[in-house]
Order: sequence, then structure tokens, then C-alpha cells
Amino acid sequence: MARPITLFTGQWADLPFAEVARLAADWGYQGLEIACWGDHLDVARAAEDDDYVAGRREILDRHGLSVYAISNHLAGQAVCDDPIDARHRDILSGRVWGDGDPEGVRQRAADEMALTARAAARLGVDTVIGFTGSAVWKYVAMFPPASQELIDAGYRDFADRWNPILDVFDEVGVRFAHEVHPSEIAYDYYTTERTMAAIDHRPAFGLNWDPSHFVWQGLDPVMFLWDFRDRIYHVDCKDAKLRTGNGRRGVLGSHLAWADPRRGWDFVSTGHGDVPWEDCFRMLNTIDYAGPISVEWEDAGMDRLVGAPEALAFVRSLAFDPPAAAFDAAFSGAD
Amino acid sequence: MARPITLFTGQWADLPFAEVARLAADWGYQGLEIACWGDHLDVARAAEDDDYVAGRREILDRHGLSVYAISNHLAGQAVCDDPIDARHRDILSGRVWGDGDPEGVRQRAADEMALTARAAARLGVDTVIGFTGSAVWKYVAMFPPASQELIDAGYRDFADRWNPILDVFDEVGVRFAHEVHPSEIAYDYYTTERTMAAIDHRPAFGLNWDPSHFVWQGLDPVMFLWDFRDRIYHVDCKDAKLRTGNGRRGVLGSHLAWADPRRGWDFVSTGHGDVPWEDCFRMLNTIDYAGPISVEWEDAGMDRLVGAPEALAFVRSLAFDPPAAAFDAAFSGAD
Amino acid sequence: MARPITLFTGQWADLPFAEVARLAADWGYQGLEIACWGDHLDVARAAEDDDYVAGRREILDRHGLSVYAISNHLAGQAVCDDPIDARHRDILSGRVWGDGDPEGVRQRAADEMALTARAAARLGVDTVIGFTGSAVWKYVAMFPPASQELIDAGYRDFADRWNPILDVFDEVGVRFAHEVHPSEIAYDYYTTERTMAAIDHRPAFGLNWDPSHFVWQGLDPVMFLWDFRDRIYHVDCKDAKLRTGNGRRGVLGSHLAWADPRRGWDFVSTGHGDVPWEDCFRMLNTIDYAGPISVEWEDAGMDRLVGAPEALAFVRSLAFDPPAAAFDAAFSGAD
Amino acid sequence: MARPITLFTGQWADLPFAEVARLAADWGYQGLEIACWGDHLDVARAAEDDDYVAGRREILDRHGLSVYAISNHLAGQAVCDDPIDARHRDILSGRVWGDGDPEGVRQRAADEMALTARAAARLGVDTVIGFTGSAVWKYVAMFPPASQELIDAGYRDFADRWNPILDVFDEVGVRFAHEVHPSEIAYDYYTTERTMAAIDHRPAFGLNWDPSHFVWQGLDPVMFLWDFRDRIYHVDCKDAKLRTGNGRRGVLGSHLAWADPRRGWDFVSTGHGDVPWEDCFRMLNTIDYAGPISVEWEDAGMDRLVGAPEALAFVRSLAFDPPAAAFDAAFSGAD
Amino acid sequence: MARPITLFTGQWADLPFAEVARLAADWGYQGLEIACWGDHLDVARAAEDDDYVAGRREILDRHGLSVYAISNHLAGQAVCDDPIDARHRDILSGRVWGDGDPEGVRQRAADEMALTARAAARLGVDTVIGFTGSAVWKYVAMFPPASQELIDAGYRDFADRWNPILDVFDEVGVRFAHEVHPSEIAYDYYTTERTMAAIDHRPAFGLNWDPSHFVWQGLDPVMFLWDFRDRIYHVDCKDAKLRTGNGRRGVLGSHLAWADPRRGWDFVSTGHGDVPWEDCFRMLNTIDYAGPISVEWEDAGMDRLVGAPEALAFVRSLAFDPPAAAFDAAFSGAD
Amino acid sequence: MARPITLFTGQWADLPFAEVARLAADWGYQGLEIACWGDHLDVARAAEDDDYVAGRREILDRHGLSVYAISNHLAGQAVCDDPIDARHRDILSGRVWGDGDPEGVRQRAADEMALTARAAARLGVDTVIGFTGSAVWKYVAMFPPASQELIDAGYRDFADRWNPILDVFDEVGVRFAHEVHPSEIAYDYYTTERTMAAIDHRPAFGLNWDPSHFVWQGLDPVMFLWDFRDRIYHVDCKDAKLRTGNGRRGVLGSHLAWADPRRGWDFVSTGHGDVPWEDCFRMLNTIDYAGPISVEWEDAGMDRLVGAPEALAFVRSLAFDPPAAAFDAAFSGAD
Repeated sequence: MARPITLFTGQWADLPFAEVARLAADWGYQGLEIACWGDHLDVARAAEDDDYVAGRREILDRHGLSVYAISNHLAGQAVCDDPIDARHRDILSGRVWGDGDPEGVRQRAADEMALTARAAARLGVDTVIGFTGSAVWKYVAMFPPASQELIDAGYRDFADRWNPILDVFDEVGVRFAHEVHPSEIAYDYYTTERTMAAIDHRPAFGLNWDPSHFVWQGLDPVMFLWDFRDRIYHVDCKDAKLRTGNGRRGVLGSHLAWADPRRGWDFVSTGHGDVPWEDCFRMLNTIDYAGPISVEWEDAGMDRLVGAPEALAFVRSLAFDPPAAAFDAAFSGAD
Repeated sequence: MARPITLFTGQWADLPFAEVARLAADWGYQGLEIACWGDHLDVARAAEDDDYVAGRREILDRHGLSVYAISNHLAGQAVCDDPIDARHRDILSGRVWGDGDPEGVRQRAADEMALTARAAARLGVDTVIGFTGSAVWKYVAMFPPASQELIDAGYRDFADRWNPILDVFDEVGVRFAHEVHPSEIAYDYYTTERTMAAIDHRPAFGLNWDPSHFVWQGLDPVMFLWDFRDRIYHVDCKDAKLRTGNGRRGVLGSHLAWADPRRGWDFVSTGHGDVPWEDCFRMLNTIDYAGPISVEWEDAGMDRLVGAPEALAFVRSLAFDPPAAAFDAAFSGAD
Repeated sequence: MARPITLFTGQWADLPFAEVARLAADWGYQGLEIACWGDHLDVARAAEDDDYVAGRREILDRHGLSVYAISNHLAGQAVCDDPIDARHRDILSGRVWGDGDPEGVRQRAADEMALTARAAARLGVDTVIGFTGSAVWKYVAMFPPASQELIDAGYRDFADRWNPILDVFDEVGVRFAHEVHPSEIAYDYYTTERTMAAIDHRPAFGLNWDPSHFVWQGLDPVMFLWDFRDRIYHVDCKDAKLRTGNGRRGVLGSHLAWADPRRGWDFVSTGHGDVPWEDCFRMLNTIDYAGPISVEWEDAGMDRLVGAPEALAFVRSLAFDPPAAAFDAAFSGAD
Repeated sequence: MARPITLFTGQWADLPFAEVARLAADWGYQGLEIACWGDHLDVARAAEDDDYVAGRREILDRHGLSVYAISNHLAGQAVCDDPIDARHRDILSGRVWGDGDPEGVRQRAADEMALTARAAARLGVDTVIGFTGSAVWKYVAMFPPASQELIDAGYRDFADRWNPILDVFDEVGVRFAHEVHPSEIAYDYYTTERTMAAIDHRPAFGLNWDPSHFVWQGLDPVMFLWDFRDRIYHVDCKDAKLRTGNGRRGVLGSHLAWADPRRGWDFVSTGHGDVPWEDCFRMLNTIDYAGPISVEWEDAGMDRLVGAPEALAFVRSLAFDPPAAAFDAAFSGAD
Repeated sequence: MARPITLFTGQWADLPFAEVARLAADWGYQGLEIACWGDHLDVARAAEDDDYVAGRREILDRHGLSVYAISNHLAGQAVCDDPIDARHRDILSGRVWGDGDPEGVRQRAADEMALTARAAARLGVDTVIGFTGSAVWKYVAMFPPASQELIDAGYRDFADRWNPILDVFDEVGVRFAHEVHPSEIAYDYYTTERTMAAIDHRPAFGLNWDPSHFVWQGLDPVMFLWDFRDRIYHVDCKDAKLRTGNGRRGVLGSHLAWADPRRGWDFVSTGHGDVPWEDCFRMLNTIDYAGPISVEWEDAGMDRLVGAPEALAFVRSLAFDPPAAAFDAAFSGAD
Repeated sequence: MARPITLFTGQWADLPFAEVARLAADWGYQGLEIACWGDHLDVARAAEDDDYVAGRREILDRHGLSVYAISNHLAGQAVCDDPIDARHRDILSGRVWGDGDPEGVRQRAADEMALTARAAARLGVDTVIGFTGSAVWKYVAMFPPASQELIDAGYRDFADRWNPILDVFDEVGVRFAHEVHPSEIAYDYYTTERTMAAIDHRPAFGLNWDPSHFVWQGLDPVMFLWDFRDRIYHVDCKDAKLRTGNGRRGVLGSHLAWADPRRGWDFVSTGHGDVPWEDCFRMLNTIDYAGPISVEWEDAGMDRLVGAPEALAFVRSLAFDPPAAAFDAAFSGAD
């Protein structure tokens, strides 16, 4: 099988990187999608310090693991967000948060994303995954009325802040893969179209396809792959379960914590939710996606040490290769 | 029929109040739910000026219309909202917006809601409908992670800001009917429960049941009436149509304008959407709701002059009275 | 239109027959399906007393009403039921109930059904509608285990008790139309098959097709018409609404009273429920059903004086005639 | 209302044209979509004989009817069909059928379609509706295996036969509107795309949107309008009802006659089927479709004299105009 | 894993207890839910005879099996049932059936249930599972009309008969866990509420959650766990498959035997039906249910020797433990 | 387990028979359903040449494989087909195709099917699987209008051509099992009924039940087994996945190649599609089907060397035996 199965380390960043590498390798993962937080990857050091990079590589090599992509959702989130508040403080490094002045945070976050591109390049990786943030997400209810001019301004703000970052990506030969996700500038089908248009479809900006939020938004993750097939730069296997249906649980989740039984949907271990995984993997074959299949494991109702190896087995069973030849050759009627 | 059918004037505030009254009466509406914007009702004047109130009454009387409730969604919205921005400026009166300093706006909005209670009392009306705003709506995606402490603080903020307003409502014998709605502190089933708990279920705070946003959130508007039956203070008939289902239109609406065919749902004229109206009206009978049935007409794809009378006919055909006696009396076997 | 629309008087038996006739005629009904209780029709008198029959006829004639069928559900119910208890006492005439000894009640009920056939004949009507009762309905949960021998005995009991009654029907040239209904020997598709088999498919025993109980049992009333097309002797238009779906309301109804909002289904005015009426009427055309379409009006949430005329208009709008010729004749390519 | 509602005369061609005109006008239709068969319109005469055209016009004028399009499905069908057989003989004029030699029939049918364009031009109409026929429809089951080369050849055959016809259309300033339909070269979404590509998307070839066959193929007629919005040249309101669901009725219809209750779907009077008409008409507003709304009435279970006026009333009730202005203007907060 | 998986011996009572223990242990079950019939457990002896109890214990110990609950559905059924008939005779011991006089049977059954509590206590077990029977189940069709007074009397009868039994349970420190089930006093959501109310919610009476009958009644077994979370005393994993859907199979089952293909639903091996097991087990985690998960194996279409070990593997794979900590801790942004 | 699981060799005919036998045996298949094309089985030789038959047998014996049926879909297809064209040429042997004159091809195909019966007999096999072809399949769209006379003629053509073939089957004691399939005379429920009637239900003609085409036609493969239970002569496990639902993919497949993501349905490896396999296998138990379960493996998106053994494991897990005795025996209450 050409496509390696990797583990995203983002939900394991409370553990040392070396420990996560050991666990992943023991379970049989072939590589890691390394999160740029916890002690997993310091992009500032990686962008400049060859020894640091060599050290990360050594840990991977020791466990026979590859790396195809690094992820910096948390810094990316702050590039366009408005407001910037305590939630960001809790997830950003001191280097980016600084004094917490919103515009300063945004600019330092943009610098951090440029650094992340450089870190990727130095690590020999051509893809950085992340979020963009959004100045207009907060208008999602469209009340008080948010004019299309106001929304347009949000997309311009995104383009103005990300184009310079993407210039650095182009400079170092790395691509950014945005994860389509509520709270981001692109969170569904049509906002993805609008986002692409805002930056003139420049190839530096593509997508990290993660179908979990498609489930509760009523979106089809399979045809999304087909329609955006030239921009699928990375694949994250996170799953979600829709639990509306009894008339009390709402699709917006009621601001309730994960695993609260009153939520209308929740993240679940890959294969336990509503994502039509087999159809997704078949479509990845169809569009000739050749990158890694990365497990983003998140399930507030299951022990991750049980779930992560189970998810690997699940993905392996369905992410099969396409056949070499068409089958109806066998019907030809030669004597 | 005991329950009058009224027209909410909020979507008609670009027309003079007298003109709206004439139209509504001509179509056969029995009363108005008067919006506190446009020239329809100036709460500052109504709270203090008997002549002004008499003038409004005169317009109603001239057309044989009653009034059971007044509505001040726009000022209510600003009481708790954070951020306060251009969207609020566009919908607030100069009196409330002032210099636009957020906290000042919030406090002036709170004063306006207290005034609205006084205006209602002077007008002889016992119900004020409106929105609450919310300091935590913007966290609805729950990423960046919003802790339950942060959410709790939002509900405390609501209670802190609204309890003094509700004290004025109690003082003048008027009830507040919050409209459960995205962007508000209570927007679904469980946030309504949490909202009620935040103010200790005080009777001054009840609900304006408007089922339109239930449709796309996957909520059952019928059982909502049953479960919150002691707090249903007013009924607004606004309808919505869910249009997800082709995998591209998402339930969040993609920040697209009303009537854009790519939205996952839209408002439609009462009776043209997915609200199970007959079951709703039957449940209103069951819980002995005795207030007005008010048509909140909103449909970006239909002419309102066509839609409003059609909606009245629709509501009339289904909001029938319950029977006086149980039918199986007829089976009794007396000779 | 050849097929008359009639009103079943069973749910109006608390009113004098003459009053029901007046109401029905005023609303535009073309005839009555007369219930054999209240003062509507006394089968003992009708079977023997020509003057009584003439009197009934006179009331009908005065209002321009026809009669095609009479109904005696209540006596029929007692023919096979076990146990016989207070519920029967409440719906039976004193003549049938007598001292209430179960076997005596059953035999007097059987005599009453034979009398009903004679009454029908004297009234010039060829169809008697009714229930059969059942000795085995109470085993419907199949726990404690009810062996197929026990069930078979129930069907034999039905045949033993009804064959002599049906002999009288044959004698006087009248057919019995059983209404498929829970608590009866035939309440769904396969119990109808078994019932027919139990009496060797004798033509004296056919069906009163009433689709209301099909709705919540998950049965298709349209194909039922097709499969039993040679035994559809009468049609009753009663409607029902399924209200399970929120996970709390169960299909069995929780022993709750009609109109209780916690029931999983309820009777509703014809056209307000889940019966696919148009498809049903089209199938009646297809099978060349030529009898009356009778409205059995039952809705604990609506005033019957409002509902009965509305139901008539509803049935009229959908019970249209089939065309005289196939439409694609129009495509023939003659010059 | 700008958009006229017309009646397609194809299913009425057994009646004289003058009689159909009288009926349609009496019911309130505003115009006719005239079929080129029966005595309704002889394209050979209309293409050359001014008096004949004046005579047709006179009949229309007498009844106050307009004409916006003429239809020649039957001749169009024979242009590409293979095999040509008795079915074609039954629907073609002697002029086109001739000696029935297949290739001769196809060429005479092509000539007839060119004549139809000329007839339209002379009649002052800019749209001809019709079918294309197909050399590959018979391979729809894809067994015995039909290679993509074979299918491609079918689309080339279509282009080769229709491009010369379309040249005549261009010459006389008339457009062809193909009705997407099984047995044609374009019968669903992707075959429509392929068809458009086969003739290089030339504007002379557009679509007559008829949603009836979308229903049972699982296609969304609403988004089809959006995606092909620059090629929607005409609208035919034919409805269909899907009746699979009991496991015995299949979607292919079992080669059974219309109205047979065992068919998996059937045509029904406009508004009685599964087409989401309101959403369709709203989308026609959205894409600024300005042509006629034509009722193609076909229902083997209903009398057409009852159905045609009912369909007109149905279409009128839902094909409402869009509003002149956005409604949330009413929320602006000016004092 | 803290929660043991046990096998209910009720469907194996044709085998000697020692044999069932051996089989269960060989398959890997951790304990037994012992049925009080066959030779599995004689409550009369167990309540009084220490040697007998020691003998049972010895068999369990020999196989390394625990016991957490004993079950006496059959005697419990007779406590309230009316009528008492041959079905009861077939499942009751001679000691309880005696001369078969109904009231005598009911009282001896009540004594037996009290004995069962004593047997449980002596065996060191704190839970007795069972049925209650019902005087009103037979009225489930609500025709002939059963007044709410009649239904109320049935619940009072239940309370009158069970309160004295529950007093014995309290005396010996054992809880009764009623299995919600058709033919019992509590068979769905609202009858469970009514049952609890009838005995003033006394803690001695709780529930054995068995979701199999929820499936075909349209009930949600998951939210039932949440709503009755303080009364979930035991869990039985029995599964059922709904097979209505073709319009002929009805939800009531047509009095047909298990495995008859015409039934509308049937019992199937755990994991082969429609119970959403994973959501159920997750909810058991959420409500901190700490008792055994017992497999009640029943499938008339599968060999039990094949099914029982397969069911154990199925349950094990989904009844996973919840995690120790929330996962988004990993996002904290510490340097 | 009495019922062997076999592999159909039709989709493997590009490999030598001996190689397919080796593969199948290695994977654990118990036998082969041998295709009469490629080098797998030459019916002309097998019908006459004992050595050839012994050679085939030897290959099977070497691998411990049985044979219960042979399949000749390709020759059968040509018996009734019209038109006969390049598609047939590509799948027929030179012996049958000859000069390609359609009627000659049909007659040689008929001879080939008679030979196939003789080959089967000589091989000791009592079932031949195949297709019939159809003169009327091409009329499936029913436009141009195909009269019932025309359709009837197609069924007579089938009877006329197949009755002589079936006479040979009867002569040698072999049964023909037609595979219900689009492009054949019987492709759904009602065409199967009509086909059976056309040949007077003669026992020589039965069915090869292959549910794959039931999926997208909306047919229930389970009840089909029940209704045609006396004619189920063989079982082929081919699976299909319905992928309509986004409004663009149509159920007819758009003449697109297998595995094209725009098709509305596709074949998939057994167990990966929408066939309700467990219910199917249970029904096979119910109707006492005792023949082989044959895997017809076809999936253009999966490598067959991966899929075929996986399919075997899947079928094995669900095609379990029924139990020997009814389970509620265990409830009998003997002391």
C-alpha cells in the first residue's frame, strides 16, 4: 500500500514527543503528522536550528516513522480571528500571545505561520496543516443583520493577512492545507469556494480534508473530495456522530462540553461515527490522492490508548488499493 | 375563536405605522404585535406621554385592531452582546447607540428595555417580546476551546444584566418573552433550560415561541411547547425551509444572504416551510395557551403583500379550537 | 360521480338520528352509514317492524340521503371477545348484556348480529359493517408464551361463532364487512389472511377497509386494497397521525387517553393524518370499487361540527373518477 | 405576473386544435405550447405557407392565447434512434416514416426538425421543444458490456446528426430546447453535461426543463436549474409519483402500462406528485427565467378535463413573483 | 474493565445449571444472571437452606463465575396478570400454580417474589430482576373504550400487590429491577413514569434496562437511560430487528411464531438488531452505571451455541471504559 | 454447515481455470460455479468428450473443490436479444457468433444453451445458471410508446425460443436458473412473474437469486426469496451500493463506466454494499434452500485478490445455520 497511515499528535501534546512516537510505532502507525505545540515541534527552533531538526528526525527514525506534514492549527487560528481573547491566550505560546493586544497577536501569529513553513521545509516536509481564523465567523447567525459587504470585508481581511504568509510558503516550496472547520474562514462547501476565490485560487493554499464537521452540517464529504480534487493536500481521519433526532438535542451543541449526552453531535473515534469512510477512501483512490492518511483521534467517551490502535486497524481495513485493471475484461469472448 | 391572529410589524417598519395598520386590518388580521422601531412605537415617548399612547391606540381603534404585545428585539439584542459593532449601530436608535462605546451601549440598551416595560404597561399590554443578546454566542463552535467556566460566566453576565430589567417588569406587571434564537443566550432546548436556571426561573422571564430556527437545528417545536408550557407567553409564526440534502448546502448557511439558493435553509412565508404547524397549534390547545397567534412574516423570495394575507388564511385554517367534549361518549350503550 | 360520499353516524350517536341526518345533508353528504346504537337504528325493531323501517327511511328521504350500509361494531365486538367485562357492559344494549355472564353475552351478541343482517335486508341494504371480537387478541405480546396451537384455537373459535351468523347473512342476501382493527380477530395483513382461511374464504365475509390503524402498525393501506380486492365491501375514511419519533412516545400509546400529547399516535380528522388518501382513492378506482366512500370522523382535538364538513370537502377533492381513455392515444402519428 | 402559464397540446392532439384552444382559454390558460402533430401544427405547411400560419394565429387570437414555443418531440425522437421500429411508425407522420428504412427515417426526421425551426420562425416563436433520440439508450443496462468507446460513438452520432439541424436553427434565429428524458441522448445530469460537450455547448441547443423523470431517477430538479441556468430555454410542468417502497414495485416500471398499480412510478397531474414545485418555481425566479410556464398534463388515473384546470390553479398558487426589495431593510434603526 | 459481562440463564433452563455454568465460563463470561426456573435456582430452597446456596455457589466458583442478580420473570408475571390462564400454567412451578384459581395463583406468585428477595439476600446478591404482570395490559388497543378510571385502577392494583412484596425487599436489603416489556404494567416510557408514580418512586423498585422492545415501539433506549438514570439497577442486552417496511409486515407481529418471516419484528442475537448498542454503552458510562452487563440471548434463527460466544465478543468490543481525562487538555498552549 | 460456499469463476476467466481453482481453494472456498467461457469450461467438448470432463474434474479434485452449477450467461444473453450487435460479438465465442447474422446468432446461442444442459449433466451437475436475453428490454423507457401487445409479443418470443431449450434440460434432468437482471426478460419482481407465466411455470425454469440489481431498483431481495421460494435454484452473492442522494447522480448510471464516481450505483465487493445479507441468509434458512452460496465478486474499486478472500469470510460469518429447536422451550415451568 503506497499511502502511509499516520497519527496526528495534536491530541497527544500533553505527552512528550518521544513518548507519542514510541506509542504510535508500537501500534503500527507508519508516520506522524506532528503538531507544533507541546514539546512536539518548536517551529522557531526548527526554522533555524539544524541540530533541533536532526533531533526530531532521530526520534522518528528510531521508531521507523516518517513525517509528511506538520500542523499548526493554534497559531493559524489567531491570524484572522476577531475577537482575540482568553481562549487564544490558553492555546498560544507566550511568544505569540505576548501582551495580548489583539492586532499584535494576529501579526505575531502570521509570523509564526511563515516560520512554520520554513520549519517544514527544513524538516523536508511539503505540507503545513492549519487553521486560518476568521473575522466574520461570529456573524454566522446573520443576526444582527450582517451585510454581504461586511462578509466580503472578512474575506478580504483573510486574503490580506494570508497572502504574505503564502508568499513565504511559495518561497520555500511548501503548501498550506487549511482544515475546513467552523470558526474558520472556510467551514463548509460554499465558504471554501469563496475562500479560494479570495486568494485567486493560488496553489499555495489547499485543503486538509477532515470530514468530521461535515457530518453535522449536512455536507457530503465524498463529493467535496471530487469537487476540490486539485486542492486536497492532506487527509485527516476524524469522525463525528450526529445525535439530534429526539427533538431536544440541537445541531449547534448548546455550548455543552464534549461527551455531554445532551449535545446534538460529538467527536468519536474514527469509524464509530457517521462519516462514510469506505466511500471516502474509494474517492481518494479515484482522485489519485497519494499523500498520507492521518488519524486525528478525538473521542471524549473512550480511552485514547484503546482507541488509537483500533482506529489504525479500522482505517487499514478500508483504505484499500484500487485494482490494476478493469474487471469486465474477463467477459471477453475469445475462444 | 378566542385566540386572535395578529401581525408582527417588525418586517414592515419601513412603512408608517398607520399604513401597516390599514393593510393588516384590510387583510383581516385582528391585531398587531407592534415593533418598537421605525415609527411604529417610540418607547421613550410611550413610557411617559399619554397623548402619544392615545394616538397609537386611536390608529388601532380606527382599524378595529387590538394589541396584546409589543416587541423590542433590537434593543434587547444589545443588552448582553459582545462584541458590539457596526451591526448594532445599523439597527439601534441614536438614543441607544450614542457614542458606540460597547459598555455604554449595553447599559443604554438595558435602560431601553426597562422603558419598554413601562411603555407596555401604559399601553395596557402585559407582554414584551424581545432578544437578550449573549456574551458567549460567538463561542458556539467551541473552538478555540471554550471552557464551561467561560460559558457559565456568560450566563451569569446575562443574569446580572437582565435581573434589574426584570425587576422593572415585575414592578409594572409586565412579562418579558424571550425569542429562542441563534445569537441569543437561549437558542435551543438546553440553552433555554440553562437560561431559565440562571435567573432562578423567575416568572417575569418567559418565552416567545417562534419555531423557525427549530427547523434547521433539528429541534422539535411541538414538544418544546409541552416541556416549557408554563413559560409560553407569546407565539410568533415564522417558518423556515431546510434545504440541505444535496451535500453542498450546509446547515450553517455559509454566511450567504437570504434567498441565495446555496443556503442550507431559509425563511419562508408561514405555511411554506418545515414547521409542523397543525401539530403546533394542537399543542397550543393542549397547554391551554390563550394568547394571540402572531404572524411574523419573512420570506426573501415572495412579495410580502401577497404573502401576508395568504399566511393569515393558512393560520386560520389550522389554528382551530379544541372540541368541548370527548368523542367516545357517543359509544355508550344506553338503550 | 358514481360513488356517493356518506357519513358514518357512530361518533354522533349521542345526537338523535334525525338531527344527524339534518347536519349531514346540510353539509352535502349524500348518504349515511347508520350505526346500530343510540337511537339511530334498533336492529330488533328493524328486523321485524315495517313501520319502524319506513320511519327511518322517511328521515333519510326528507334530507335526500341514501343508505348503503349499516354498522354494528359494538355487538360484533362481543361475539368472540374474552374476557367480557365492564368495557362491554358500557357499550352494549341491555338486551345483549343481560346478566353479564360472558358466554351468555357472546351468544346474545351473535343473535344480535344475525338480527342486524335481517335489519339490513329489510332496509334494502346489502352490507353490514362491524367487528368480530377475538379470543386471542389479549395474547398479542406473545408473553407469557402463546403457542400456535393456542392461537389456532382462537381462529377456530372465531369460525365456530361466526359461521352460523354468516349463514343468516347468506340467507338474507347481505354481506358482512369486518373492519380490520386491533382487538379484533383480523387486525393486520397476515391476521386478515388467517381469518379468511379460517372461514374458507366464504364470500359472506369481506372487509370494511379503514386505513387508520394501518398507519401506526407500519402497514400499507394501498396494496392491502389490491391484495384483498375481491373482499373490499365497504370503505371508511378514518385518519390517524403517527407521533413517535422523539424517542419517548411509543407506538402502543401508553394506555393514554385520546388527544394526550404523549400518545405515539392519535386519530385525526380525515386528511389531517398519515393515510395516503389520494393513492388510496386511485387504487379504489383501479380495483373498480363501486360502493360508498364513508367518512368515519374521529378527532379528539377538533370540534366535529368544524371537522365533518371539512372532511367531506377533502374527500371530494381527491376521490376523483378515472379517465375514460388512455392518454397516449394522443401521440398516434396519423397525418 | 410576467410569466404566462401555457398548456402543452401534445396530450390533446386527438382533439382538433381549435377545440383545445377553446378549452385552454376557458380554463384561464394564457397561451399554448403547440404540438406539431395531430392537426395542431403542420410544420411543412407552416414553414412555407403564410396563410396557414395566419390561420393558426387567428385561432389563438380568437381565444386571447399567446404562443411562445412549439414542440416536436415525435420527429426529434427519430433523428438518432436506433433501432427504428414499429413504435416510431405509430407516432411519425407518413411524410417522415416513408418506407420505414431506418436511415431514411432518421434523415427525414432531421429534415423535419429543420422545418420545425423554420415553422417556428414564421410563427414568430423563438423556441422549439423536442427530443433528440439516441443511438445508445438501448445500452443503458451496460450489459452486454458497452465500452466507453461505444458510448462516445453515440454522442458523436448525436452531434453529427444535430449540428446541421442546429445550423438551420441559428440561421432562422430559433433555439432548440431538448427535454431531458429517458430514451434520449440526455436523460439525467451527467448525460446532459456530456451532450452539451458533444456539441461544444453551442447556444442553439438548450433545455426544456421537465422534472417528471427526475423524480424516479433520484435527481434534484431544483439544483439542475441552477447548474444549467444559462441553458434553461423552456419549462414544462409534468409531475410524477414514486411508488417503490414496498419492495415489489421497481423503479424501472416492469414494462407495465401507465396506471398499472404495480408500476414503481407513474405520471400524475401537476401538483399530485413528488416534484418540489415551490422550490422549483423559486429557483426559476432566482435564475431570472422569463419564459412561459407550460403545463404538460399527463395522468392515466384522472380525467384530463378535471385535471387541466386544477393544474393551472395549482401552478398559479406557487409560481409567485419574487419581491422587489430585501426585507431586512425594515430593521434599519434610523430614528 | 470494572463492569463484568454476564450471561442470563433464562433461555438455557432446559440445560442443567452446572452445564450452563460450564458453557458460559468456557466462552469467557464473567458471571451469570441466574434464572429462578429449570433447575437453576429454587428460591424456596435458597431462601432457607444454606447448603443449597453453598451448592450453587460452589458451581459458580468452580468455573470462576460471579453472580450479581437473579431473575424471576415467570413468577413475577403472575402477580398482577388478569386473566390467569393456560399460558401461566405452562410457565409456573406447581408450587405457584396450585389449583390454578386465579386469585390464589396471584397471591402465591406474590409470596414467591418475596421468597426470591430472601433467596437473593442469602446468595449475597442485591438485585432481583423480573416482571410485574398487569391487570390492564389487555386493554392496550383501548377498544372497547377503556376509561382512564379503569386504567388508574390497574396501576392501583399493581401498587397494592407489589408494595407488600417490596417491603420484604427493603427488609432484606435487595432491590427489584422490573424489565420494561409489553404485557407488563410498565412497557414504555410513559407507563414507566406512571408505574413509578403509583408506588411513590420508592427506591426498592427500579428497572432492568432491556432495549429489545424499545426498537419496535419507536422508543429511544439511550435517552431512557438518561431520564431514568437513578433507577437503572440492571442491564440486559437483548436485541431485536424491525422488519416492517414492505407494507405487509405489521409491528404487532400478527400473532405469528418467532422466526416466521411475516412477523414485523423479531428477537435477534445481540448485535444483529437495531439497538444502537455503542450509544447505549456510552450512556451507561455517562450515568455511571456500575453493575453487570448481562447478555440475554434470544434468536429463533441462530444456534445459541454459536450465538452466545459471538454476543460476548460483540459486547466486549463496544462496552469500553470512558477515558480518565478530557482530551482538549492537549491543546493548552504552554511553551 | 451443509451449504457450501463457492466462487463464481466468470470474473476470473482471464486466468486459466487451473489457476482460479488453486486460488479459490487456497482462500478456503469449497467449490466453484464454473463459467462457460475463457478456458474454464467448453460446453461443446464437455457435452461429448468424457476425457475433457474428467480433466475438469481432476483439477477440482486436486484442490478439494466441488461443483454444483455451471454458468453460461453470455450465450444465454444472445438467445432472445434484439438487436444483436458488437457487444454480443465481443462476448460470444466464434462458434456462436459465426457470421454475426442476428437470427443465426440467436439460434446458435439457443443450441449452445442446450449443449450447456448436456455438459452439466455429463459433469454431474443439476443446475445451469444464465441469462435469457430479451427482445423488449430496449423498450424499458416506454417511449416511444410501447403497447402491451408489443410487450406481450416479447414474452411470447421468449417462450418460443426457450421452451425447446428447456425441453432438453428436462430430457437430461438439469434445471435452468435465470439471473434476474436488467437487459433480460425478467429483471424485477413483476417481470419475473410475467416470465414464469409465459412458460406456464414449468419447473425446468427457475431463478439464480442475485440481489445486486435489486438494490438500485428499490426491490426487496428478502421477500423475493419468500415469494419465489419454490423457484430459487441457485444463489449468487453480488453486492451493489446505491449512491444517488446528492441530486446529481442518477439511478440509471448515466452510461458511465464502473467505478466512475458520478454513477448512481456501482457493484462492490460482497458485504460492502446495500444488500441486507444477514436477512437474506436467514430467509434462505427459512425457505430451506439447500444449495451452494456462490460469491460473484465484482468491484471496480478493489483488487480482486484482496476482495475474494474477504468476501468469503464475510459470507461465512453471516450464513449461519438455523437452530435445531425453538428457544422458548426453556421457559417451560416444570419443577
